[in-house]
Amino acid sequence: MSALLDATLPAIAPPSAAAAEAAARRWDEKTKPRGSLGRLEELGCRLAAIRGERELAVRPAIVVAAGDHGVADEGVSSFPQAVTREMVANFARGGAAICVLAAQAGARLVVVDCGTVGPPLEHPAVHSRRIAERTESIARGPAMSRTQAMQAVEHGIALAGELAADGVTVLGLGEMGIGNSTVAAALAAALTRVEPVSLCGPGTGLGPEGVARKAAVVARALEANRAALGSPLDALAALGGFELAFLAGAALGAGVHGLAVLLDGFICSAAALAAVALAPALRGRLIAAHRSPEPGHTVVLDALGLEPLLDLGLRLGEGSGAALALPLLASAVALLEGMATFAEAGVSDGG
Amino acid sequence: MSALLDATLPAIAPPSAAAAEAAARRWDEKTKPRGSLGRLEELGCRLAAIRGERELAVRPAIVVAAGDHGVADEGVSSFPQAVTREMVANFARGGAAICVLAAQAGARLVVVDCGTVGPPLEHPAVHSRRIAERTESIARGPAMSRTQAMQAVEHGIALAGELAADGVTVLGLGEMGIGNSTVAAALAAALTRVEPVSLCGPGTGLGPEGVARKAAVVARALEANRAALGSPLDALAALGGFELAFLAGAALGAGVHGLAVLLDGFICSAAALAAVALAPALRGRLIAAHRSPEPGHTVVLDALGLEPLLDLGLRLGEGSGAALALPLLASAVALLEGMATFAEAGVSDGG
Repeated sequence: MSALLDATLPAIAPPSAAAAEAAARRWDEKTKPRGSLGRLEELGCRLAAIRGERELAVRPAIVVAAGDHGVADEGVSSFPQAVTREMVANFARGGAAICVLAAQAGARLVVVDCGTVGPPLEHPAVHSRRIAERTESIARGPAMSRTQAMQAVEHGIALAGELAADGVTVLGLGEMGIGNSTVAAALAAALTRVEPVSLCGPGTGLGPEGVARKAAVVARALEANRAALGSPLDALAALGGFELAFLAGAALGAGVHGLAVLLDGFICSAAALAAVALAPALRGRLIAAHRSPEPGHTVVLDALGLEPLLDLGLRLGEGSGAALALPLLASAVALLEGMATFAEAGVSDGG
Repeated sequence: MSALLDATLPAIAPPSAAAAEAAARRWDEKTKPRGSLGRLEELGCRLAAIRGERELAVRPAIVVAAGDHGVADEGVSSFPQAVTREMVANFARGGAAICVLAAQAGARLVVVDCGTVGPPLEHPAVHSRRIAERTESIARGPAMSRTQAMQAVEHGIALAGELAADGVTVLGLGEMGIGNSTVAAALAAALTRVEPVSLCGPGTGLGPEGVARKAAVVARALEANRAALGSPLDALAALGGFELAFLAGAALGAGVHGLAVLLDGFICSAAALAAVALAPALRGRLIAAHRSPEPGHTVVLDALGLEPLLDLGLRLGEGSGAALALPLLASAVALLEGMATFAEAGVSDGG
């Protein structure tokens, strides 16, 4: 491994159990029946644990990483590959769902081109972290070299560090990449050893035949890369994508700097699973925003031990679910910091 | 019935199917796979249907109605009755959960004393709509007279009208009242004919014995009031509470003025069920914010045909779930109004 990755992995500490316990005691003093704020109380404790000695305030950024995939040639998406690029331009111009949702949530939106077909996208709102125009098809061999994977991961680590330095405290992950639910299924299959058929779903719109074709492509990818799955980084290189490797790196970088990592759907969660395989202490620093109807998402969430906050049938990606969950994080912190205690308010405690 | 209620019930029209269809067509032109925003798309269509020709913008108010209950003497709550009053003062001073959550959601908070034990609460932030200090115990006879019920309902109708005139477009309902989950269970039992044991849960903290006692109290209440349940208004008088009747009225008033009604938990939903019994066209104007763990809530939601947006284990009341769901409504509208279409963005439509 190279220097940045080498330095990052051991620097990720588990979240603070003491801070979580202190938050739980604070909840019990607030003017409400104990536990009556349900998952918001858990969420407040988890954020306290992640932040430790740092301030709790939610200052969010959403990173949308885009990448193109060789496997798109295998007919695994109902959209043409050009859509990845077109959507990056749409992100840059403010027309996509995530632009609207990030603005609603008061989150900074960071669009990253990790490698899309065509020349570099020249737009001030697009961060260029291109590894190549696209990966090779995982159905035929490794998506990228180990060096390329490391480079993409390190770009992610570095970006998270920059955002932390800018005062960001919550990092929402999002992605765009035609074919990337196939790649996420392959990576998740390698990391969880669950069968491809249990991990493949319609993505953004395949019918039953398309889903079956996708599962077959994933099975071929596992076969074609069997010898190359020795370590989590090898798995990411063989079965990942530039944006997935970048997002895994962003999660790792967030872990070092004490940022909460807010996962969007299946693809981001698969990237986070690879990151946790690299640095197990990262697990307690992740928060699942929503449950995707994609069957692989539940498999990956179970592997990560996460229960999502929302279940709204979203299957868009882009970080849309992460943006929609942000107000819950902000509310949990505001309640923990702003509610009166029984003593302050002169309210009788039922006990 | 009296003049205001007489005029209100027939003035509630069903939501506009044409507006919902137009919204569905708008969603399909947006730069995203069709249907990929899941329940946000449904929500946008429902809001469009509710608003009809009116503007969609979400300008929310949350009405927290407080009332005391004679049935509190039957040992159905783990908190003393004084807590109702203490919490109204806490709402007025800004220390309660709903104060924090309404501020987070940008919602106006309207606290209403519908009848609490003690003299009128003199505080500029508390609207006094007192019917009496508290209801009679439903376990022994009717909670209130038909005249009192009508008065409380009409106060609610009038307040919704005032908020509509002030530009409010979404009315969140919330409540506070020691003993009111028992009252809600009794009212729901009368309106749905479901057995009390299936409607009673721990409320804000009863153990199994307390829940059994509560179900027995509800059964006694149904027996004691059997002859008095001829009409929905009679049921509300016999088995309701001042705040429940007020909230039923607020929902009806919102229905007349084209406001969306955002329900909080079990108690607000039971009040809305009574309102729908009075004016069935109101049903399509309701939105369920969250699913309470209280078993009666699911029974009432099923009777209303509603699927909640959130499921966070909240059992606080106060309108807390309604406040937490507001950003989803605002996001649905912002997406419908702000996202680019495929044509505008030059993105290829997969079909």
